[in-house]
Amino acid sequence: SRPTAVNLSDAATKLQNLVSRTAETAKDAKSIFQVFIEAAEAMLVDDVADNKAIGSHGAEFLQRQLGSSRNISVLTHCNTGSLATAGYGTALGVIRALHSGGVLEKAFCTETRPFNQGSRLTAFELVHDKIPATLIADSAAAALMNNGQVQAVIVGADRIAANGDTANKIGTYNLSISAKHHGMQFYVAAPVTSIDLSLPSGKQIVIEERSPKELLNSEGGLGKQVAASGISVWNPAFDVTPANLITAIITEKVCSISPHYLHVPFFVCSFGVGLYCIISR
Amino acid sequence: SRPTAVNLSDAATKLQNLVSRTAETAKDAKSIFQVFIEAAEAMLVDDVADNKAIGSHGAEFLQRQLGSSRNISVLTHCNTGSLATAGYGTALGVIRALHSGGVLEKAFCTETRPFNQGSRLTAFELVHDKIPATLIADSAAAALMNNGQVQAVIVGADRIAANGDTANKIGTYNLSISAKHHGMQFYVAAPVTSIDLSLPSGKQIVIEERSPKELLNSEGGLGKQVAASGISVWNPAFDVTPANLITAIITEKVCSISPHYLHVPFFVCSFGVGLYCIISR
Repeated sequence: SRPTAVNLSDAATKLQNLVSRTAETAKDAKSIFQVFIEAAEAMLVDDVADNKAIGSHGAEFLQRQLGSSRNISVLTHCNTGSLATAGYGTALGVIRALHSGGVLEKAFCTETRPFNQGSRLTAFELVHDKIPATLIADSAAAALMNNGQVQAVIVGADRIAANGDTANKIGTYNLSISAKHHGMQFYVAAPVTSIDLSLPSGKQIVIEERSPKELLNSEGGLGKQVAASGISVWNPAFDVTPANLITAIITEKVCSISPHYLHVPFFVCSFGVGLYCIISR
Repeated sequence: SRPTAVNLSDAATKLQNLVSRTAETAKDAKSIFQVFIEAAEAMLVDDVADNKAIGSHGAEFLQRQLGSSRNISVLTHCNTGSLATAGYGTALGVIRALHSGGVLEKAFCTETRPFNQGSRLTAFELVHDKIPATLIADSAAAALMNNGQVQAVIVGADRIAANGDTANKIGTYNLSISAKHHGMQFYVAAPVTSIDLSLPSGKQIVIEERSPKELLNSEGGLGKQVAASGISVWNPAFDVTPANLITAIITEKVCSISPHYLHVPFFVCSFGVGLYCIISR
């Protein structure tokens, strides 16, 4: 899997180890295959349940945080829905839960250049689910916030360091800065498997750089050339949002700690009983 | 002309008035045409001279402000070069002047979604002029700043209100917020004709909204459909950057005022003897 997404690589490693262990005692290849399929299907069931828990925790949390029981509009980035996760989505799972709870006014999604995961995938899921939704250019996010059209930003995560620094699709950091400037809540929604406690901070997260073609050609590199010939390109696939720009990290775990833990600076603790346990220092 | 760009509409009005006045006493259509052509050509000469003055003022000013005589890297947005102005450019004129002065390390240009003026036009001019240049996605600007790869942002202006609030291509406001967050200088380069003293602030600037197709289809609406069918779109062509996020407005006028006028809050005065006279309140 790609270097940034920790949970995908963890899942693959778990299955690999299971296959190795089973192979030591298995009578034939078919029984190893059977064990593998059962484990993978159990993972899918667990993942969907985790996504649904993230959705309901997030929806409840946002309503409490925003102090409004209805008419919540949020902005999201990239795709974190059923096309990227196991079925319900992380950030998009929260949006789905807000919508099914009748409190979502509108979801805004960014185009998410250069690969257009927002306009292709998130927009597709929002239209499919009949969720009121509007697409914007990535660069229009600050103007949208300034117009008072959204109350919060909610994004997913590819990898979260132990201090809460979060690697996610390029542009996430940009949005977190704009959210702070406009005094707006900025949430990350991700399963605890996205948290990599082996990394002290986001500085240790390796950022994948992708082909210049994604910017040079239309359709994320698959279409015809748009950019001027001969121009150099810097195309990082991810950026790191520092923990102090994140209001809260929403996970599938339920928080048993009082909610007086928000706002910067904070860290993510490791005892797994939180809306992922974001606690003031 | 488009509602936002004040100087284009002013120029058209001037020529229209000239034609009307000439028509009152002219013997034939040909002589009116001759007067019109001469005036338009004089305007072009003046515009190029103004652009070159903006370029040299800006280059000198940036070097003084950044305290470095070499290795300046800047980020620009949209197109402000010979393809958008009268020949040398405004923000791109400053970049050209930095380059010809041997102090430019690199110019970064944004793609400038949704119409790709950065990747199509600015990138073309930079490559044509052999200026070291790199294209980035609009959403990568904050990560670029955080990496320390640029020292300043320089953009053009479609219309500047009397208090310095500046309407420019969508995404400019986003960049100004990121620049502030990273403690980076944010410059606007524009002829004084872009300053509309009849507008007290940016709140009075009308923002043009453009076709959803620019986001739904590739190549700024001219190519094939990329986005999911049925998604709504919000596509403002411009946004307003408040004066307090602008370090300085660079014009073709030379400043006779001491340089103790920078940083927020400031206003643009109207007596026309400044690097456009940005003075602390």
